[in-house]
Amino acid sequence: MTLLQTPPVPALEASSLQRAEDGRRRAVVDAVLPAVDGGRFAVKRVAGERLTVEAHCFADGHDALRVLLLWRNEADTAWQQVTMTAHPNDIWRAAFTPPTPGRYRYTVCAWVDAFDSWRHELARRVDADDIRLAARSGALLIDAAAQRAGDARDRAALAEWAIALDARAVDAGAAGGAGDSATLKAMALDAALGAVAARYPDRHLEARYPAELPLAVDRERARFSSWYELFPRSASPEPGQHGSFRDVEARLPYIAEMGFDVLYLPPIHPIGREKRKGPNNTLTAGPDDVGSPWAIGAAEGGHKDILPALGTPEDFRRLVAAAARHGLEIALDIAFQCAPDHPYVKAHPDWFRWRPDGTVQYAENPPKKYQDIYPFNFESEDWRALWLELKSVFEHWIVEGVRIFRIDNPHTKAFGFWEWVIKEVQHTHPDVIFLAEAFTRPKVMHRLAKLGFTQSYTYFTWRNTKQELTAYFTELAQGAGREYFRPNAWPNTPDILNEYLHGGQRAAFMARLVLAATLSANYGIYGPAYELLDGEPRDPGSEEYRDSEKYQLRHWDLTRGDSLAPFIARINRIRRDNPALQADHSLRFLDIDNDQLIAYVKRTDSGADDGVENVVLCVVNLDPHHVQSGWIALDAAGLGVDIEQSFQMHDLLANQRFTWQGPRWFVQLDPARSPAHVFVLRRRVRSERDFDYFL
Amino acid sequence: MTLLQTPPVPALEASSLQRAEDGRRRAVVDAVLPAVDGGRFAVKRVAGERLTVEAHCFADGHDALRVLLLWRNEADTAWQQVTMTAHPNDIWRAAFTPPTPGRYRYTVCAWVDAFDSWRHELARRVDADDIRLAARSGALLIDAAAQRAGDARDRAALAEWAIALDARAVDAGAAGGAGDSATLKAMALDAALGAVAARYPDRHLEARYPAELPLAVDRERARFSSWYELFPRSASPEPGQHGSFRDVEARLPYIAEMGFDVLYLPPIHPIGREKRKGPNNTLTAGPDDVGSPWAIGAAEGGHKDILPALGTPEDFRRLVAAAARHGLEIALDIAFQCAPDHPYVKAHPDWFRWRPDGTVQYAENPPKKYQDIYPFNFESEDWRALWLELKSVFEHWIVEGVRIFRIDNPHTKAFGFWEWVIKEVQHTHPDVIFLAEAFTRPKVMHRLAKLGFTQSYTYFTWRNTKQELTAYFTELAQGAGREYFRPNAWPNTPDILNEYLHGGQRAAFMARLVLAATLSANYGIYGPAYELLDGEPRDPGSEEYRDSEKYQLRHWDLTRGDSLAPFIARINRIRRDNPALQADHSLRFLDIDNDQLIAYVKRTDSGADDGVENVVLCVVNLDPHHVQSGWIALDAAGLGVDIEQSFQMHDLLANQRFTWQGPRWFVQLDPARSPAHVFVLRRRVRSERDFDYFL
Repeated sequence: MTLLQTPPVPALEASSLQRAEDGRRRAVVDAVLPAVDGGRFAVKRVAGERLTVEAHCFADGHDALRVLLLWRNEADTAWQQVTMTAHPNDIWRAAFTPPTPGRYRYTVCAWVDAFDSWRHELARRVDADDIRLAARSGALLIDAAAQRAGDARDRAALAEWAIALDARAVDAGAAGGAGDSATLKAMALDAALGAVAARYPDRHLEARYPAELPLAVDRERARFSSWYELFPRSASPEPGQHGSFRDVEARLPYIAEMGFDVLYLPPIHPIGREKRKGPNNTLTAGPDDVGSPWAIGAAEGGHKDILPALGTPEDFRRLVAAAARHGLEIALDIAFQCAPDHPYVKAHPDWFRWRPDGTVQYAENPPKKYQDIYPFNFESEDWRALWLELKSVFEHWIVEGVRIFRIDNPHTKAFGFWEWVIKEVQHTHPDVIFLAEAFTRPKVMHRLAKLGFTQSYTYFTWRNTKQELTAYFTELAQGAGREYFRPNAWPNTPDILNEYLHGGQRAAFMARLVLAATLSANYGIYGPAYELLDGEPRDPGSEEYRDSEKYQLRHWDLTRGDSLAPFIARINRIRRDNPALQADHSLRFLDIDNDQLIAYVKRTDSGADDGVENVVLCVVNLDPHHVQSGWIALDAAGLGVDIEQSFQMHDLLANQRFTWQGPRWFVQLDPARSPAHVFVLRRRVRSERDFDYFL
Repeated sequence: MTLLQTPPVPALEASSLQRAEDGRRRAVVDAVLPAVDGGRFAVKRVAGERLTVEAHCFADGHDALRVLLLWRNEADTAWQQVTMTAHPNDIWRAAFTPPTPGRYRYTVCAWVDAFDSWRHELARRVDADDIRLAARSGALLIDAAAQRAGDARDRAALAEWAIALDARAVDAGAAGGAGDSATLKAMALDAALGAVAARYPDRHLEARYPAELPLAVDRERARFSSWYELFPRSASPEPGQHGSFRDVEARLPYIAEMGFDVLYLPPIHPIGREKRKGPNNTLTAGPDDVGSPWAIGAAEGGHKDILPALGTPEDFRRLVAAAARHGLEIALDIAFQCAPDHPYVKAHPDWFRWRPDGTVQYAENPPKKYQDIYPFNFESEDWRALWLELKSVFEHWIVEGVRIFRIDNPHTKAFGFWEWVIKEVQHTHPDVIFLAEAFTRPKVMHRLAKLGFTQSYTYFTWRNTKQELTAYFTELAQGAGREYFRPNAWPNTPDILNEYLHGGQRAAFMARLVLAATLSANYGIYGPAYELLDGEPRDPGSEEYRDSEKYQLRHWDLTRGDSLAPFIARINRIRRDNPALQADHSLRFLDIDNDQLIAYVKRTDSGADDGVENVVLCVVNLDPHHVQSGWIALDAAGLGVDIEQSFQMHDLLANQRFTWQGPRWFVQLDPARSPAHVFVLRRRVRSERDFDYFL
């Protein structure tokens, strides 16, 4: 027999065996979900929103496992602990609710629990000798728990239990009476004492998931917001006059009545004079042409300054305060680029690319040229100073009371900068929201969201058919991006007038508004162009507006009888009243046998603590020209009611109530009247006094 | 204007900005695939097998990117570089072929290439002034490349090019002749010189994917192997006599003729006498009962010793050598557990759990008891010595010439041990193969494969219907496990006689063999029970064999006329001749309109370098009792031929050739004759002499 002929230990092993006590950790935490790229990036939630964590845990053999979810605010060192519960297929679950905005971490630990294992086995034992022996083994485990007990009374109780259990086992052994087994078993399985022992587990061989996964927690508006964009310079009541912050202030009640909570302003800074663009983006500007607000910077200043025609810093502060009184937050447009006469160009030539002829490299995508725009050179030797200065732009406007920034074309600036600056700003101001205005390739948009952007523009504007909308919003709600990519859906922007809206069909504008506002918890419109049904492209088939406000003043008649303002107000009211519309993960599309009709359901997380569940079912007619009808296929899973019992569907747009029953229901929508139903489900409830009513 | 009012720098940032040059790296490597748990575990391939790597890369703006795949053997420090090529949606691809078994690493780096960007832009420029200016900028880039050029002739050529290009641009500027543009452009875009410059890229701002992903490369048998299991003690030609290694040696030609390449032996060690089990797992063994080979250890020795009745170490070495001459490798069964009289129990009491009554804790799962088995205590204080000793068991048999180990119940031993010991053994012997015999929950089986097991037993034995087989093998071939979990499919084992085989229906045994051998590149049978159609359960509905060889000797009449040996030989021959059956990733199921018929295709990776592509289509009748027929739906994608042209399907089992054409084909299988077709596709080829034949 060759037991002692152990061969010499090769190199690798010596080192690998030095991994101290690791070898005895028998529990395995194989996965922790959700996670973005294995923890490289943060999962996103809002304060007060529950995060349900799933872990895949097991150990060798049949021993009992205990699993804990650990979470903490990054500012804290101590972990909060939540017991995870076992589900089939080695899945363990627990949830926690981050109370405030900020950055958090969560991970999972597990250990093989000798005490639990002992109890589970003892419960299944039948042989009297086995039970006696097991009782004595248990006494040792209980005594060990007593040693660990911090509380003196617990310690005493456990020690006493251990002694009594062992003594009884020994006596029974001596007496040899098999009748003792039941008593002994009962004594060993004492629930109350078992609970005490469970409070002092032996965790010295606990296994920890290798990553501490990051969680970015924002305030609620990050998940649920209604944006309204307008050009202050077009806000004057006098046609042809340059509007100001005062004019915007006067318009606040109008915007607030429509039910928006974010008022987003294009850049408010001095506009460059060199290479200024004329109306409809012509290359030559007349002396009175106002130019593009995105050509930032002139003698009067740059990104921290205000175009004098709009008002003073004091006027701006007044506007911010007045907006707040109307439940509106001001969002600023931050476009990190310079007009040729921006002060940065002289003060920091190193921040730009220079050409052999001694001129600065303007933005271009040959043969296209943007001579009025100088991009920053993010490969500048002086990049640190550049980063700090750009960060100080945010800090400047934060001091002025701004907490929401819409970032212009973030995908044309260094990605590393965004990851750094967003973390920086939110470190001191966790309530700041960043919206990424990137209409580019999917992986680039996702990267920006991973890097920290709170919300992201989407492809919604170009998704018009049932198939397009279903595929895209299913991906947004169910795909990998759901944990970090928060869509903000816009039916129009100053840059995008989709062909679906050309001609200004009222039903088309209504349908797209309902889709944006119900498919996506965050949405916005560019007004008054939207509520006043502006569907005039610069050229047929173009996505540019004719006489775009990007290059000239416009005057809008808000009193027009055909304005969508009242309809928009109704939609936003419905959004505020129905929590189901204030989040995106629950979205599910329903089968409906007409490709011009699209139907979908959103519901509140039944696990959530917001009382009775809220279920909203939307049906939209995508054809602005004809009446369309079809049969919806309902399923209990989607509605969360017994569809064999009758229930009420309350159309909040028409304020009509329908009683439905069974799996299929007929719907007809006339675009001339309303292109959509927005139903909320009313459950049948039996009152004490024994008649039915609907919640 | 407030440019200079930069607020003070808060804490976080100072530190974060010290991340040195990071800020200027504009390229992004967002993902590298394949990867197992983000690189925590290794992807698996075999030597000579191409690994195609996909990376998701992009940068801000429109600049040109260059992306390299880096790979190396862990033993080397230098990286091999492969240029990755761009595909739609920011996906980049490249492949490499690890030449030898061992552990490798791969990762991806990318950078924004100023020279490439310049060329792409210049090519699109039209304005003469732009072209002149761009040519001068380019001259600077070319000069910089010249500085970097290691080769003197390249350096000279580039410097010359830079000077000439700049001079020509200046002259053209002076002359003002627009006609020069074309010449200038041609000169700047010179392909040959461009290629030289591209050899000296500016990589100082290159971005690297954060993880170096591990790749475990095995020898080819890890991916393609045919196993035959037998009990040496039943190999005697004399009924009732204890068989020996010499008897197995005499049987090698029989096994080799069937076409197997791995001969797997249950434990060959001394068998415990204490608590020895009798026939059919009875608790009391008679004096002549041989006991279970898995009750390892007795006075004669333990895991490094041989049961005297089987032979001497010398006999074992003879067997290994003789097997090799027949193209067979010996695989040993390693079961880390001890009989009560195993020498370890006395020599290392610390390696076992002791009970209050001074006895060792045997294996049990209350109320079930296995008194003849002592498990090791992997929480032993002395775990390091235990790990080293268990590792030395592998090393002992490696010295004896064994390179394949079948591990008994690895999921009842500490997972950490397996990760360590497999890495240890393969570090010095990369040709060693470990097969995990774990029939347990999915996540546990996957974890063992991630930890390093080369092959894994599967649920195949319990997957008998078309739906079960389709779902399970689609998951194995397409699911996340495909990168690390290598299935080894067995229609029977000494522990598992599935009900499908009860009664010994010849057609059932044939069908299950074809399924195992064609669905899975690694498969095995327990013989002679299989080829002799043993379908006798211990009790009706039991999965245990009656008079199981696990507890007693059996005598087998290999000369029986109804033996499946010739059929098995044919199947194994087909596997050797058709590379499509030697790997699993290509598996695709075809639609066939009869639930008793299952059809699927396997093909060689068209990208591979093995000449003409090999395509195999199998159809199996799952009903052993009745003729079944149906229509297969073919698709060009599946077969890789133009199905509108006629092509030949050659049934390698019946050696019949059929000419097919079009998308649907009729198939009928009579279990009384053959329950399966194994077609290889023969393409129509036009010879020089202009008549058709089939490859």
